[in-house]
Amino acid sequence: MLVLVTYDVSTIEKSGRKRLRQVAKKCTDYGQRVQNSVFECSVEPDQYVRVKAELEKIIDNETDSLRFYLLGKNWVRRVENIGKSDAYNPDTDVFIL
Amino acid sequence: MLVLVTYDVSTIEKSGRKRLRQVAKKCTDYGQRVQNSVFECSVEPDQYVRVKAELEKIIDNETDSLRFYLLGKNWVRRVENIGKSDAYNPDTDVFIL
Repeated sequence: MLVLVTYDVSTIEKSGRKRLRQVAKKCTDYGQRVQNSVFECSVEPDQYVRVKAELEKIIDNETDSLRFYLLGKNWVRRVENIGKSDAYNPDTDVFIL
Repeated sequence: MLVLVTYDVSTIEKSGRKRLRQVAKKCTDYGQRVQNSVFECSVEPDQYVRVKAELEKIIDNETDSLRFYLLGKNWVRRVENIGKSDAYNPDTDVFIL
C-alpha cells in the first residue's frame, strides 16, 4: 500500500535541525521523496507500523508534526502532479518555507 | 471529498516568495492548513477542478511542484497524526526546511 508521510519539524533550535535530518533520512529508507517534506512510501502493513514507531521516536511531540495518509493499493488514480515532478533533490534544490 | 494539497515553491528569487504566499493564500480559501505546506481541502468535484486551475496559474511549472492526493469521502480512517496536531499558524510557528 502507498502511505504518504508529511512532516513539519521545528528548526528554531539546533536539536530541531538534527531531528529534521533524521526524519528525512528515516523516510528515505522507506520511500521516495516527492517534495521537501513529503515522502511516498510503498510499504506492507508491518512496515507501516515500524516506520511510524521509528519516526515517533525521533520527533518532539510538543513542537513537531507527522501526518500519515493511507492511499491504499489503488493509489495511482488518487495522485495528481502539476509543475516540477521529478524527484526532489535536497542537495540541489533550495526552498525556504 | 477530501483532497490533500502539498506544495514546494522555489523561493530563491523574490518572485518565488510571492508565489509561495499566493499559493498558501489560495489554499486557505479551500481548506485547513495542517502543516507548513500541506492543506486538507474538503471540496466538491467542481471546486477541485477550480482550485487546481487557480493554483496552476500561480506556480512556475519549471521550479515549483503541486501535488494533489484524493482521499475520497471516507477519509477519516486514512489519516493519522503523531505529535503536534493543532492547526499550523504561519504567524507564530517558524520552520526552516
